[in-house]
Amino acid sequence: MTEFRSVVAATGQPQGPAFTVHGPAEVAALCAAAADAFDAYRATTRETRAAFLEKITEEILGIGDELIEAAMSESGLPRARLEGERGRTMGQLRLFADVVRKGAWQQLRIDPALPDRQPLPRPDIRLRMIPVGPVAVFGASNFPLAFSTAGGDTASALAAGCPVVVKGHPAHPRTGELVAAAIARSVAACGLPEGVFGHLVGPSNDLGAALVQDPRIAAVGFTGSRGGGLALAKLAQARDVPIAVYAEMSSINPVLLLPEALKARGATLGTAYAGSLTMGAGQFCTNPGLVLAIEGEGLDAFIAAAAEAVSAAAAQTMLTSGISTAYASGVAALEQTSGVETVAKGAAGEPAQGSAALFRTTAAAFLAEQAMGHEVFGASSIVVVCRDADELQSVLRSLEGQLTATLHMDAADEALAAALLPVLEVKAGRILANGWPTGVEVCHAMVHGGPFPATSDPRTTSVGSMAIDRFLRPVSYQNLTAPLLPPELRDDACGDGAPRLIDGVLTL
Amino acid sequence: MTEFRSVVAATGQPQGPAFTVHGPAEVAALCAAAADAFDAYRATTRETRAAFLEKITEEILGIGDELIEAAMSESGLPRARLEGERGRTMGQLRLFADVVRKGAWQQLRIDPALPDRQPLPRPDIRLRMIPVGPVAVFGASNFPLAFSTAGGDTASALAAGCPVVVKGHPAHPRTGELVAAAIARSVAACGLPEGVFGHLVGPSNDLGAALVQDPRIAAVGFTGSRGGGLALAKLAQARDVPIAVYAEMSSINPVLLLPEALKARGATLGTAYAGSLTMGAGQFCTNPGLVLAIEGEGLDAFIAAAAEAVSAAAAQTMLTSGISTAYASGVAALEQTSGVETVAKGAAGEPAQGSAALFRTTAAAFLAEQAMGHEVFGASSIVVVCRDADELQSVLRSLEGQLTATLHMDAADEALAAALLPVLEVKAGRILANGWPTGVEVCHAMVHGGPFPATSDPRTTSVGSMAIDRFLRPVSYQNLTAPLLPPELRDDACGDGAPRLIDGVLTL
Repeated sequence: MTEFRSVVAATGQPQGPAFTVHGPAEVAALCAAAADAFDAYRATTRETRAAFLEKITEEILGIGDELIEAAMSESGLPRARLEGERGRTMGQLRLFADVVRKGAWQQLRIDPALPDRQPLPRPDIRLRMIPVGPVAVFGASNFPLAFSTAGGDTASALAAGCPVVVKGHPAHPRTGELVAAAIARSVAACGLPEGVFGHLVGPSNDLGAALVQDPRIAAVGFTGSRGGGLALAKLAQARDVPIAVYAEMSSINPVLLLPEALKARGATLGTAYAGSLTMGAGQFCTNPGLVLAIEGEGLDAFIAAAAEAVSAAAAQTMLTSGISTAYASGVAALEQTSGVETVAKGAAGEPAQGSAALFRTTAAAFLAEQAMGHEVFGASSIVVVCRDADELQSVLRSLEGQLTATLHMDAADEALAAALLPVLEVKAGRILANGWPTGVEVCHAMVHGGPFPATSDPRTTSVGSMAIDRFLRPVSYQNLTAPLLPPELRDDACGDGAPRLIDGVLTL
Repeated sequence: MTEFRSVVAATGQPQGPAFTVHGPAEVAALCAAAADAFDAYRATTRETRAAFLEKITEEILGIGDELIEAAMSESGLPRARLEGERGRTMGQLRLFADVVRKGAWQQLRIDPALPDRQPLPRPDIRLRMIPVGPVAVFGASNFPLAFSTAGGDTASALAAGCPVVVKGHPAHPRTGELVAAAIARSVAACGLPEGVFGHLVGPSNDLGAALVQDPRIAAVGFTGSRGGGLALAKLAQARDVPIAVYAEMSSINPVLLLPEALKARGATLGTAYAGSLTMGAGQFCTNPGLVLAIEGEGLDAFIAAAAEAVSAAAAQTMLTSGISTAYASGVAALEQTSGVETVAKGAAGEPAQGSAALFRTTAAAFLAEQAMGHEVFGASSIVVVCRDADELQSVLRSLEGQLTATLHMDAADEALAAALLPVLEVKAGRILANGWPTGVEVCHAMVHGGPFPATSDPRTTSVGSMAIDRFLRPVSYQNLTAPLLPPELRDDACGDGAPRLIDGVLTL
């Protein structure tokens, strides 16, 4: 195949002009350009890099409604959602511009020489973080803007000083092309080497595999399926020089309804839950796919209200026909699983659409069938009815790693919540109370990460300012004279706004 | 085998009472105890953990000369070296006590709620680092104290709040047992759960494999051979839940002699080089096994002086018979490599001893035979004679990742050094000028790490205070009430000495 077409998500029909399918030659050319650009790009000042990120926001906003319409057509997502997502994408780029300017990401450390120390003098040793090298970023189907071509992985890698080669998601080639052109214009406008940014398109997994295997690629950012993430991690480990893959993969985001909260507002929680579950056809990494609660009237009221809302939910166009088919199979498998009762299903729709589905089971049945704990990407959820707090703890402990864990609780639930927290911390990257996990704030304290299989590297986050750390590594400099030291490590740079750890004391 | 004996390094003869060989049952028991201890240990205050690390120093010092004598006999290393190493081990533990107290490792971040933000309010989000879980540490043969039972990996993991299970190196079981008992006494004296520290002994690789495969182990620290590190990384990746392996493996630590420095003091540098090369029988991760320089009188003088010093060097007892045999094979292989000339060899010794060896080759020959760039653990080194700076750059670019890279230079070499620096930064974790890489300072700005195969994770260091980051992961807390927040994230904890990033502003 040498060409492929963009597809209208709602109809499955091809649209617009054909795209040339990229292959090994384009991978090699873009990786070579990225490697060539690396030294010049990483040597740019913090201000240059920040201004570059801001220029990208201008250029993307400058595309105007054409971008929103392309994304609507290709993803099936509604206008308001995509306008919001564009805003989020701009927010991410601006956050990283601010982070780059402030300079804490450099983790500057200076241990001055101690010439008179006994029994041996201490040399002068200084440390900074440097970018790891060219980064491969995989666009995600479910966030055509915020986790794709100019999404969080790209923004954080560019902020770190790494050239980026994006493998655009084939579900939105037109959207990706518009954004890639905006970034390329920004590269040119800022006088940066062209290789700072590259964009690959094509429908096959081979393209992504070739990118990860290219020896010039130093790290990988990925948001997508567990199968996809694990496959990339395996390729990365098998290289002559293994590299880090930051894959955000799989999570069912347990919601724990504690007894007093359930008693006080079971029905209200049930309705709100269905809203979080069905938003965006449930196509969020943080979609709440599992509810844990103790049996009783409160839980009955919750299930009844959730069932009513789910039954009333309209079918929604899913991102791709593949996702729609996988969702339907996942739901069908749960319907046929022994011990699982179908509580409610949303209205049926077109073949490209998904209908919400709500199931219930017992703790004993859930503990006996591991498959119930696997992600069904879409608006499907299981309520696990537990007999008591001990059983709830057992179910919680049986879960795999998660992006989020949510507590609905009242003040009188505090003792139980406190007992659950140590388990939640070990299981999830973010713990939230009395809210829903589907909103992921872009800020400094956000962790969008978590233990395997939520991500392939639980020490990291792919959302929020800490995401930049994934693309940096420390280098120390011993007894280098000032002219040879990186500018930010020279004595005369102190006071440039970046914090420094000087002889163990943090200095602003 | 159910028992094994300690061996006198110098003679290969067994000594002292037999040690029980541990197996799967002991691995399971210690990992279960570590997992049970995790929540209680990580909930301890910073002061409790710091005091515990300090207590370990007291208990180790309290062993007195028995420890030094055991290590001398088992490792063949001289008294002064081991006394120095004990001091270094104490320094590491005290450094981490100080780091734990200061609290920056928690990376506290608070993004307060913005209830009036449009279009959506921002919830309250707070972040801290928590320990990853029980850590497996592999003792290293070449540092029976500083990189073994109570070495840098153990100190940084305990500081992070992780229980530790050490797999002691079978080359020094008596030394390891003495130190392990000192740690166990410290655990008891500080009122900590017994599972905070466990110690496994046995001569087979299966023991270490079982430890890495235990599902309760969350990360691995290792210093040793490339083969060993890669084997552990493979096991860790093949687990149901893959975990991070921090393996410090292989480095030949290039030393670049720049023209003006060579011209000014070639002979002096040659003598000093031989001193660094032969120290401790060359059994350092940072041993300088490769010299790069441009041909000329300066280099001739360097080689002549180094050859003289190497020829005069006495044979030294190596750590184990296995290391001694591997060293002899590595030297023999270089002697027989086409294009490699043997410049000098040290005096021959006993079977357990290693003799220093100095080789020379040309850049063209080096570039044609990759094997010359592989580590020969011991006092062997190759001088690569380059025709000009371009050839020197080519050799440098051909190298694998390194722990260190050293420049010997004068002011007039600055332009060449500046041109080399970007390559050195990409190749090595530490760059030093006008010194020798074999001293690794334990401080805040130290990086003892580097690109593969120097380590399995170039984002980390195994020496210095940044080593604690390997054993931490971020968790964020959204809208939790004060009683449920970790104490250090509550509003009333601000001012406790730990830095906080509050709404993006670093606050002391």
